Parts: sequence; C-alpha cells; structure tokens
Amino acid sequence: MPGDSIALASDHAGFELKASLASWLRDEGYEVLDLGTTGPDSVDYPDYADRMAEAIRTGRARRGVLVCGTGIGISIAANRHRGIRCALCHDTTSARLSRQHNDANVIALGARMIGDAVARDSVAAFLSTAFEGGRHARRIEKLS
Amino acid sequence: MPGDSIALASDHAGFELKASLASWLRDEGYEVLDLGTTGPDSVDYPDYADRMAEAIRTGRARRGVLVCGTGIGISIAANRHRGIRCALCHDTTSARLSRQHNDANVIALGARMIGDAVARDSVAAFLSTAFEGGRHARRIEKLS
Repeated sequence: MPGDSIALASDHAGFELKASLASWLRDEGYEVLDLGTTGPDSVDYPDYADRMAEAIRTGRARRGVLVCGTGIGISIAANRHRGIRCALCHDTTSARLSRQHNDANVIALGARMIGDAVARDSVAAFLSTAFEGGRHARRIEKLS
Repeated sequence: MPGDSIALASDHAGFELKASLASWLRDEGYEVLDLGTTGPDSVDYPDYADRMAEAIRTGRARRGVLVCGTGIGISIAANRHRGIRCALCHDTTSARLSRQHNDANVIALGARMIGDAVARDSVAAFLSTAFEGGRHARRIEKLS
C-alpha cells in the first residue's frame, strides 16, 4: 500500500522502464528504494538481483521490482536466494496470481517484452493483491 | 535435436499440457522422460521441480520442460537448484532469448496462460536455439 517501501533494480536493458516505474510509484505515494543500475552502460543482471535479495533480506524493503531485457535472467538470479519468490510476469493476470498462489515478494518484468502501461498495471496488481494461503502456503514451505 | 532425451514434469494444473507436449515431442523424434504427475489429482509443484532438478543433475536428461498453472511456482522452485536455469516463457521470442542469452536448460510454461500451439512453438524454439556465450557466459557464472 502507499507508504510502503518498494525496492527497484534493473540491468542496462531495464534501466528506462525502471526509471519510469520509479517515477510512477512515487506519484502513487510509495517510497522507492532504487538499487540501480543508473544508466545505459552494460552491467551484469545477477549483481542487481543480489542487491534486491539483500534489500529484502535486511528489511529495507518488503517488495521489489526487477527489470532486465526479458525478465528471465534477473528472475533466475533472484530465485537463487532463499526468501525471494520472484515472479516473472507479462500481464496483470500473472501478476495477480503470483500474489494469490505464490506469495511472490518480487516481480520481474521484461523491458523488451512489454510496454510501460502493461508494466505499470502488472506492478499495481502485484502490489494490491493478497496471498490466499491454505494449500498454497504448504507448497511455498516446500521450496528448497 | 531429435534423439535427445527431454524431461517433462508438471503439477495437476499442467498435466494435460504436459501430456500433449510429450506426445508431440515423441512424434518429433525426442526421447521423453516423463517425471509426472500422471493425473488431475492435486499435487505440490515443488516436488516436481525437484524431480526435474535431479534428472538434469544426474544426466538423465539434458533439457527439461516444466508446467504448472502459471509457470511461476514451478519455475521459482526449479531455480532454487544450482545447475538449473529455468526460463518462464509465454512465447517464442522469450523462448529463443532464454537460450541465446541465459543458456536456459529448462523451460517453464503456464498451462492456464498459453494454449497448446504457443506452448509447442515455444518448446521448439527452446530446443533449437543455441547459446550465444560471450558476455552472457560471464553473467551466468555470476548466478549464485
């Protein structure tokens, strides 16, 4: 909800979409923790996924948004970390279900796959949807 | 390429799409290693992601296909395992890029998100595309 701190991180391919999302989230009343990258120079996505995992682990943010070209590399890297459940989403349906069924705490987006409006709507669904618990909680406990 | 062994696994939500993909892959000349589930009874997706990780780790298959309702839960579970790079794909573009840039060895699909034809085309792109190496190899080495 507005007032919460949302961490954002991306590689160079996701830098512009991340900046757009940061601006929109601030307008929506969220506190934005920008973990970089800060420009178009080539960087390695695992470094930014690791920064996100650290921010979530230490409680600097409760939720996060990761962006790379497809969202694939940065979501793989994020899910290497226990405590991160990073959902790669292309639409609001998957963003909603990632919260209802997977209790995702990080959403990954592909800046070369979806546009600004779809990205914003997906993040909005991610931030506004509650976990359903029940049988889904049992499955999450099984994640190694 | 045809002749290779492809491992398939899914939860109950992905069971029908998995069966359809298994049949198609056999017709295409692949050896299919079906790791379950085998029916519509409710199961927990992490158990099937773990079976996939074991099949890849032990060399029973070099590539794998995972299916759950959205592909999100089973891809998170798979990426908990070192040696697995599981790409959640919704289309042929992401499937191709997951090989070129991420050297993905497992593709995850959402049975409630895409249809049979898109799933087959995505798996075909995944199985036929080579890794580009170079700067992408450095990033993969950084995955924790």
